[in-house]
Amino acid sequence: MAKNVIIGQSGGPTSVINGSLYGAIQAAAGDERVDKVYGMLNGVKGILEDNLIELNEFAKTEEFEYMKTTASSYLGSCRHKLPKNFDDPEYKRIFEQLKKYNIGHFIYIGGNDSMDTVDKLSTYAKEHNIEGINFVGIPKTVDNDLMNTDHTPGFGSAAKYVASTVREIAIDAGAYDNVKSLTIVEIMGRNAGWLTGAAALARHENNPNPLLIYLPEVEFDVDKFVKQVEEALKKNNNIIAVISEGIHDKDGNLICEKFGGVQVDNFGHKYLDGTGGVLQKLVQDRISIKTRSVSLSIPQRASIKNLSATDLEEAANAGRYGVKWALEGKTGIMVAFKRKETEEYEIEYKAVDVTEVSNEEKTVPLEWICDEGSNVTKKFVGYLLPIIKGKVDYEEGEDGLPKIAVRKAIER
Amino acid sequence: MAKNVIIGQSGGPTSVINGSLYGAIQAAAGDERVDKVYGMLNGVKGILEDNLIELNEFAKTEEFEYMKTTASSYLGSCRHKLPKNFDDPEYKRIFEQLKKYNIGHFIYIGGNDSMDTVDKLSTYAKEHNIEGINFVGIPKTVDNDLMNTDHTPGFGSAAKYVASTVREIAIDAGAYDNVKSLTIVEIMGRNAGWLTGAAALARHENNPNPLLIYLPEVEFDVDKFVKQVEEALKKNNNIIAVISEGIHDKDGNLICEKFGGVQVDNFGHKYLDGTGGVLQKLVQDRISIKTRSVSLSIPQRASIKNLSATDLEEAANAGRYGVKWALEGKTGIMVAFKRKETEEYEIEYKAVDVTEVSNEEKTVPLEWICDEGSNVTKKFVGYLLPIIKGKVDYEEGEDGLPKIAVRKAIER
Repeated sequence: MAKNVIIGQSGGPTSVINGSLYGAIQAAAGDERVDKVYGMLNGVKGILEDNLIELNEFAKTEEFEYMKTTASSYLGSCRHKLPKNFDDPEYKRIFEQLKKYNIGHFIYIGGNDSMDTVDKLSTYAKEHNIEGINFVGIPKTVDNDLMNTDHTPGFGSAAKYVASTVREIAIDAGAYDNVKSLTIVEIMGRNAGWLTGAAALARHENNPNPLLIYLPEVEFDVDKFVKQVEEALKKNNNIIAVISEGIHDKDGNLICEKFGGVQVDNFGHKYLDGTGGVLQKLVQDRISIKTRSVSLSIPQRASIKNLSATDLEEAANAGRYGVKWALEGKTGIMVAFKRKETEEYEIEYKAVDVTEVSNEEKTVPLEWICDEGSNVTKKFVGYLLPIIKGKVDYEEGEDGLPKIAVRKAIER
Repeated sequence: MAKNVIIGQSGGPTSVINGSLYGAIQAAAGDERVDKVYGMLNGVKGILEDNLIELNEFAKTEEFEYMKTTASSYLGSCRHKLPKNFDDPEYKRIFEQLKKYNIGHFIYIGGNDSMDTVDKLSTYAKEHNIEGINFVGIPKTVDNDLMNTDHTPGFGSAAKYVASTVREIAIDAGAYDNVKSLTIVEIMGRNAGWLTGAAALARHENNPNPLLIYLPEVEFDVDKFVKQVEEALKKNNNIIAVISEGIHDKDGNLICEKFGGVQVDNFGHKYLDGTGGVLQKLVQDRISIKTRSVSLSIPQRASIKNLSATDLEEAANAGRYGVKWALEGKTGIMVAFKRKETEEYEIEYKAVDVTEVSNEEKTVPLEWICDEGSNVTKKFVGYLLPIIKGKVDYEEGEDGLPKIAVRKAIER
């Protein structure tokens, strides 16, 4: 008897998380072993709160095609972490709900925390001898920090955004070639420098910027930074220095926290100054040139016009494989990428044990960081390049902007 | 006898300033009345310092086509203002140089200050009975603040970037629909709110953000702002508030200067904190929701992937008309746009007296600002919409990024 599939999205969006949703819905809605395809709204909270939508009809619409290239999470997201203790009533509630909706396959698209959810639910099911529900994780994160996969969907497009935007900032800064300047560009990724390193792809044969790149995998020293900027200024008038938001000193103290303002508002929320702005203030007293900072911020994970075709295709395939393997009875797994040892870039999809992925972070290997912590190696660049390749076209609407699929806030 | 044409770019770049250069070179290089086409490097400083390049051969290359869709100023830029006093030896020097290079037509692509240069040089020539050199200005500025033209080349693409990016930020923020948040987005334009107002184009039928828009043409009151945010929060969980970098209180004090940090570095440069960050700090003690700020910064004027086809075409045409009119003997003029009273958007190109343009700023009419200074009218949106329309395709190179034309720094 056909069972139902439920799909959710969780954690911070990427620009291809809807690409994975697209692939998963496509695979599920077209399979005779599947009856209904549900979307849970705002992640696992959707199943807890009976907040589901049916997706079978949606999959036949034109809007469904636009969803594939729409930023953010179509089903909404959450940052809800399941309790550590399996005796917590939340587990009983979830499995009651899954039974009520006749769910046979639970597909969850997300990062570390979401893989933890897949891990916990599949482990709970095994320990409680609950059969007939498969739990499968589809990776997503712009940070590229998941273990046991060559890279993650979402990273390639974010890396392309970073490369493209840093190059544009560099050639913009180069317009005043007879004036000296330092532009600090702040990139996402607190603990893993994958996205920051992608700025190396911005270099052009006629413009060597960004001349300096600082990852959070190694310590950051302000004095050394100033020296490296001064050294770079001997050959170039306009320096672009790219930093991770998570650069820190040798004792692990974040530069933004150590030298910047830390405010706690009246409600107890903690706010840190941006790392780029803090560093700008630290150097502008010491180097007599125009200094500014630019934070690439949210567009890194939301820019449809910088989608990598490779990334989008892999994201959709990850969704398809996730459903395929769930339907084959696999559970407690995540869809992962293995890069083949071929000359031309090629990826193999494989199922990995989600336990080995959840709650771990993959950082950039130290041997890929060079020039006294101010650059990345050619090998790193070689790893990155194929992932950002390929343009993705989109249709422009009457409003001059890409056609998108967004659910009405009121429906949520 | 055929004379030479010289072309320069000045002031802050836009993403279509090279489109105007493309049109101007095309018109000049293909005309029998023209011998050589020179580019002056770094604006008027190029002619002063014999820093010129010949462009006739370049106009036949593939690279020339890529230049049309390359960010920044291909010829480099400057912020050099000509002396007020015509007795200053700089004028004599410039006219000697123009004679030396047998220049008959001086084409200058720029904003207010650049039009001032065109104005001064043409006036000087008239007053000194120097004949045979025509001075023509081609407008450019993302700020859209030039007088006597419906709009300026560069504005449409910047407006498209703002609309596209603010929409993506809004739907990204909407992913966590069950959490309340305020996102402040800071837009370029210190005195004129054209670009800030373009954020209204981001609104989508399923997502009403940005709910609040603040232009520098009217006073900004922090208490009123907090009330307007609280009012908006009654109906929507995630609020996007867009502000101009130049918002100020009723006495004209900039919000960033009044409430933020003002540093003077050891070299005497003055640095202001960003307006968005300053406003964020001002409200986060008073509204108990997640608050953050995003500054759109340099990509507003450099994003090739957000080019408006309308804007790029008009920019190239402005370059073509500038050369055409110079060759017809017009001088002391700027190419301007007149919007026809037709149902479908159409532009007429006209020559306006550059004296009436230089050193003046066109701001947003107050009747286009509504909702107690927190929104713009439908009429404003109707003015903006046709200018951002149309996609511009580009070729992707082997490096995964758009093919571009950038001069080597060493050649400058």
